[in-house]
Amino acid sequence: MAVNLSVPDVLHPVPGVRLGVAEAAIKKPGRKDLLVIALDPGARVAGIFTRNAFCAPPVQVCRERLAAAHEIRALVINSGNANAATGQGGIDDARLTAAAVARALDAAPESVLPFSTGVIGQRLPIDRMTAAAPQAVKAATSAGWLDAMRAIMTTDTVPKGATRKLRTSQGEITVTGIAKGVGMICPDMATMLAFIATDARLTPAATQRALVNAAGQSFNCVTVDGDTSTNDSCVLVASGKTGSVEIDEQHADYPLVLGAITEVCVQLAQAVVRDGEGATKFISIEVGGAKTEAEARQVAYSVAHSPLVKTAMFASDANWGRIAMAIGKAGVEGLDQGSVSIALDDVQLIERGQPHPSYREELGSAVVAKEEFSIRIGLGRGTAAARVWTCDFSYDYVKINAEYRT
Amino acid sequence: MAVNLSVPDVLHPVPGVRLGVAEAAIKKPGRKDLLVIALDPGARVAGIFTRNAFCAPPVQVCRERLAAAHEIRALVINSGNANAATGQGGIDDARLTAAAVARALDAAPESVLPFSTGVIGQRLPIDRMTAAAPQAVKAATSAGWLDAMRAIMTTDTVPKGATRKLRTSQGEITVTGIAKGVGMICPDMATMLAFIATDARLTPAATQRALVNAAGQSFNCVTVDGDTSTNDSCVLVASGKTGSVEIDEQHADYPLVLGAITEVCVQLAQAVVRDGEGATKFISIEVGGAKTEAEARQVAYSVAHSPLVKTAMFASDANWGRIAMAIGKAGVEGLDQGSVSIALDDVQLIERGQPHPSYREELGSAVVAKEEFSIRIGLGRGTAAARVWTCDFSYDYVKINAEYRT
Repeated sequence: MAVNLSVPDVLHPVPGVRLGVAEAAIKKPGRKDLLVIALDPGARVAGIFTRNAFCAPPVQVCRERLAAAHEIRALVINSGNANAATGQGGIDDARLTAAAVARALDAAPESVLPFSTGVIGQRLPIDRMTAAAPQAVKAATSAGWLDAMRAIMTTDTVPKGATRKLRTSQGEITVTGIAKGVGMICPDMATMLAFIATDARLTPAATQRALVNAAGQSFNCVTVDGDTSTNDSCVLVASGKTGSVEIDEQHADYPLVLGAITEVCVQLAQAVVRDGEGATKFISIEVGGAKTEAEARQVAYSVAHSPLVKTAMFASDANWGRIAMAIGKAGVEGLDQGSVSIALDDVQLIERGQPHPSYREELGSAVVAKEEFSIRIGLGRGTAAARVWTCDFSYDYVKINAEYRT
Repeated sequence: MAVNLSVPDVLHPVPGVRLGVAEAAIKKPGRKDLLVIALDPGARVAGIFTRNAFCAPPVQVCRERLAAAHEIRALVINSGNANAATGQGGIDDARLTAAAVARALDAAPESVLPFSTGVIGQRLPIDRMTAAAPQAVKAATSAGWLDAMRAIMTTDTVPKGATRKLRTSQGEITVTGIAKGVGMICPDMATMLAFIATDARLTPAATQRALVNAAGQSFNCVTVDGDTSTNDSCVLVASGKTGSVEIDEQHADYPLVLGAITEVCVQLAQAVVRDGEGATKFISIEVGGAKTEAEARQVAYSVAHSPLVKTAMFASDANWGRIAMAIGKAGVEGLDQGSVSIALDDVQLIERGQPHPSYREELGSAVVAKEEFSIRIGLGRGTAAARVWTCDFSYDYVKINAEYRT
């Protein structure tokens, strides 16, 4: 089902980062569903998380530990159960899982960050998790990225990873990342689960800044269904294993490293949409001529979330009236439909509120029949712009989500 | 498909109001798709309209004419084409259609309000419309409500009407209304197309006030898909044919008349949801314990619009984790999940953020297996409340909207 998305065959190792998986039989037996990412001492770790008020216990524990500036020695991630809406018991479970990893690493309990993804509202099988944790630690190797990206999948149909190498003044640097997520996707300053690592020697502040910047250009520009997960977490690790000088935001290497991190994040974020539940189309929604970037995003998301637009795209129906409807309902104060223009790729539909004289149905149909295309919207009231990536809305979205727990 | 919704067999005539239909073959031939509602002189007419910035030409013409306080002598409504996103040409078409009705009634052109519903982005077949208009005027009769409610249907599977009689100090009063709409339903201070008439002698101000109040309790509480139409229009006619004294908002009869108007609007609004595209469930979302009514509505709509909640309901799956997710993503500032409670009808799931000890999956499943049930949410931070009616999200929603134009 995924739109133009293939399985990565190479993910470059990142010095200072080892990955190991084990089977905890969380949802069902027969699959490696527990991942440990072990970090050498000295790594800088930045995280951003869901803004959903029902954020899951592991998110709460991660936030506490990062805020307290504990040195982070490992991440532990399970699929099959989100450990969300589980109350105080869920917080205990997250801490116990992290503690089991810490023991196996001979590290402090607070040095491990827990992450979970899967069904909401069920307690973790904590005994099986704490038994599997040391096995995953023992299995950890710098070549473990490909297994790791599979361990965190839930309803994903394709495992998601991206990798880059770049030359800096301090030698060759690697950036490698993995992600999971196909539904409940509308990150709000965060993402699904995504883990990106580099051996660049970023300062702690530069690590956080690079993550926020890269996520703003990638994970915060995608939506599958407008539903913001309780568990969205995105982590950037800078192991600092390569180079002799720390890279802060003023360092000449910073833009190079940020560029590579952003590229990896964009590839991962697009992979989430390409593998969106039931997706048959990959659609860029580009809004320009806005007064502010926030306003441009508001319009882009209004179009991207409209079930009527999404079902029309599934049908390869250039039903642009629904696009106009979704622009109009976005709630932009004082928007004048007489200034709005709409195009599908380069085919102009509406120009300053009037149907374009050269438009014919066949031209629009030819665009939306493709697997990838752009919906381009000009608001005609400013110079700000934004872009959002989304997918269509098919029978399979309903099927996948109506049958998810059965 | 519609959930517990039957075809009305009686709609009481309203003195001073006559309805006639004719065939204009707008989308296809063979059906009466043009309706004229003719009003005796002296009727008070109030209208509320979509807040979609891409509001359709007929909406723009209606707004102008009501703002200019022209005496209104007729409404003309067509189905099969929304005359939306049609630019200046669409405004001309709306005026020409209204003018054809005005000529047949020997009334001023500005005394006719035009309404359209159907596909967006296509011009009306104006010659056939102006030819059919005088036929509809000629056919108009006070017994025309049942034919009228059928003429305005688009993808509706059941025609929608409601009627009440009530005793006032001025004698027996009638309130009768019709509505259409099943998709692109998320009215924003307005509704689909709904036309309600009474013979009560309401003042102009009381007519407007009664409409705004009644819509606030009815049409503004429903959503099918979160998409706000370009054409939403709701009109209340007070013909003033019964009674000798004008009813203003201080008059003892006002609450009685308002009550009957509200009942008719609630029945029509619920009918829209019961016949929601692909609907198999009718769901009330009741939010209490909010700081403000706006906040309660925000949470209710977040749940009502969540595709993940709606597909779970379709599957009769008590997947309450998705309800928690939708509450959390609603964007309520400072919402504490530790104060939130969730119930399905009387089955408590979450109490103050913790899973309820007595909850078992079978209890929740029994509720969501029903055709009608409530999702009850307590935010635990105030005393304000709101209620929204919605439906589930099924394969047929996708089918209907993927195939709408083909």
